[in-house]
Amino acid sequence: MTTNVPAYAAPAPKAPLERTTVPRREVGAHDVLIEIKYAGICHSDIHQARDGWGEGIYPMVPGHEIAGVVTEVGPGVTKYRVGDRVGVGCFVDSCRECAYCRQGLEQYCTQGMTATYNGLDKNGEPTYGGYSTHIVVDENYTVRIPDGLSLDVAAPLLCAGITLYSPLAHWKAGPGKNVAIVGLGGLGHMGVKIAHALGAEVTVLSQSLRKEADGRKLGADHFYATGDPATFEKLAGTFDLIVSTVSAPLDFGAYLGLLKTDGALVNVGAPEEPVSLNLFSVISGRRTLAGSMIGGIAETQEMLDFCAEHGLGAEIEVIGADRINEAYERVLSGDVRFRFVIDTATI
Amino acid sequence: MTTNVPAYAAPAPKAPLERTTVPRREVGAHDVLIEIKYAGICHSDIHQARDGWGEGIYPMVPGHEIAGVVTEVGPGVTKYRVGDRVGVGCFVDSCRECAYCRQGLEQYCTQGMTATYNGLDKNGEPTYGGYSTHIVVDENYTVRIPDGLSLDVAAPLLCAGITLYSPLAHWKAGPGKNVAIVGLGGLGHMGVKIAHALGAEVTVLSQSLRKEADGRKLGADHFYATGDPATFEKLAGTFDLIVSTVSAPLDFGAYLGLLKTDGALVNVGAPEEPVSLNLFSVISGRRTLAGSMIGGIAETQEMLDFCAEHGLGAEIEVIGADRINEAYERVLSGDVRFRFVIDTATI
Repeated sequence: MTTNVPAYAAPAPKAPLERTTVPRREVGAHDVLIEIKYAGICHSDIHQARDGWGEGIYPMVPGHEIAGVVTEVGPGVTKYRVGDRVGVGCFVDSCRECAYCRQGLEQYCTQGMTATYNGLDKNGEPTYGGYSTHIVVDENYTVRIPDGLSLDVAAPLLCAGITLYSPLAHWKAGPGKNVAIVGLGGLGHMGVKIAHALGAEVTVLSQSLRKEADGRKLGADHFYATGDPATFEKLAGTFDLIVSTVSAPLDFGAYLGLLKTDGALVNVGAPEEPVSLNLFSVISGRRTLAGSMIGGIAETQEMLDFCAEHGLGAEIEVIGADRINEAYERVLSGDVRFRFVIDTATI
Repeated sequence: MTTNVPAYAAPAPKAPLERTTVPRREVGAHDVLIEIKYAGICHSDIHQARDGWGEGIYPMVPGHEIAGVVTEVGPGVTKYRVGDRVGVGCFVDSCRECAYCRQGLEQYCTQGMTATYNGLDKNGEPTYGGYSTHIVVDENYTVRIPDGLSLDVAAPLLCAGITLYSPLAHWKAGPGKNVAIVGLGGLGHMGVKIAHALGAEVTVLSQSLRKEADGRKLGADHFYATGDPATFEKLAGTFDLIVSTVSAPLDFGAYLGLLKTDGALVNVGAPEEPVSLNLFSVISGRRTLAGSMIGGIAETQEMLDFCAEHGLGAEIEVIGADRINEAYERVLSGDVRFRFVIDTATI
């Protein structure tokens, strides 16, 4: 038996989000029922709600940066109890059998992960995300939010946090490493915080110097404007790792030139259109152009524990649900420092 | 005092190569004089002789796959004696002081390595390559050819061999790894031999099945035609490592799709024109697009020792110097199995 719960949904492509109800499945043996407290607004929510990638399922309840409290557990649940503080990120299931699922790389599941919203679950039912009061999720796709982290600043860690933590950890950002973060938005600001906490020397590469004070406050050691061509001369051969969070089409040759030999430019944001690349820019210096997509469940837990240990939460502006559409416009115009988080009590 | 030695040179861009003489410097304290026995013809010789990259220095004596015998040593030489069998590859000097030179990555020297030909040495004198009877090289930029390797089949190892060995070693081709080599020419055929000897499962990806028998003889376990679209469906997600040796502009998105999660597509050949790439092809599966350029001196020695140990030489067709221009045409039309080597006694 499903239960209908309040939610904010886009009823159709490009239509404003509005209050509605959506069904949540019965709490199964291994499920937890979560009372959602906060849901972050990710740039990809806007993109999907407006059908930017096509094939959107409507009504669509966005939200994959979910923080809340367990209010019911299925009989087979072993990891969580009622009252536990938990989070849910970008996916709520995967095949659990492929080589990647078995390695904790569920985000690269060969069958495709089940997205937290705008997906179909194993029964073919649409999934609905975090702009809602409650959600039912398998305990194995749920993570624990450590006591040291407030739920509001923890919510964006479930996507923005892990999206940056995973490549920074995988490409070994740490002491002695020179790391650049391209773009200082919702993703980038977590990149600066996490890279700094990992012990790396951190540079922000932003279009202008407008956000320099913010960047330094977040932990950046250096701040350069990519709008200034001198930046690319001055920083040539400087970085071990560059993580690009922007979806604008960059001059990738120029950015690859900022890497040391064996350096990596890792994209977590991506332009929709193909980019043009001269392969000599990777051949010279044995450089790498790579990508990274969120992180697995175990690594997401590791990230949350790391953030709690280092006192890292997202920089947020909490809004009521009636301001979601306004917030979308503000995200698109870059007017947010650095993440909107919906107080779901207002839904 | 310089000495003039016989050589084959391109007198001007696009002019046929012809017999001439070029100056070799006096044997310095740390130099060895090498009587060249064999010089391989690399595709890039043709490219540079015909000024494909611009800024060619003429007359140009190509040749950076050099195998010969030491006939004189400078007073400070400690590694080699008269009679030693030695090789010289793509560079004959570098700054020796930068972080890369100190790590044995001289090919990525921050000051730029001194190319074996079509370069300028530290005195600003042009360098002349291996299509010649003799060459004077610093002992530190000379490698030893192990007894087990004939000089004729060893010559192409100095460029083609190390160009493939270095990325195969760096990206850990070996037992349990599924490795594809794109293109079965001078570079590719060494890639198959070396990857097989390293213990990897080796697949050749070639335009057609025309070279399948050759590929299997060289050590390939599988052979697929990239002209057949079914290949890309069948092999999706198969490889840990793909090394592309071709300079034709590939559909990089399609090739990246052949990689497992965390797999790498490494280019050692490169199209001159920029390629178009959708970044989702690296983001999905945390894949890497990288490049690699020859190898350092220590690694080149390691490669030669490995090849000797495994009985690996290049597959060659030995020619007299009077057939260089004809050989160039045959390389361009793909009519060589798999490397032309000049018998320099005929110069």
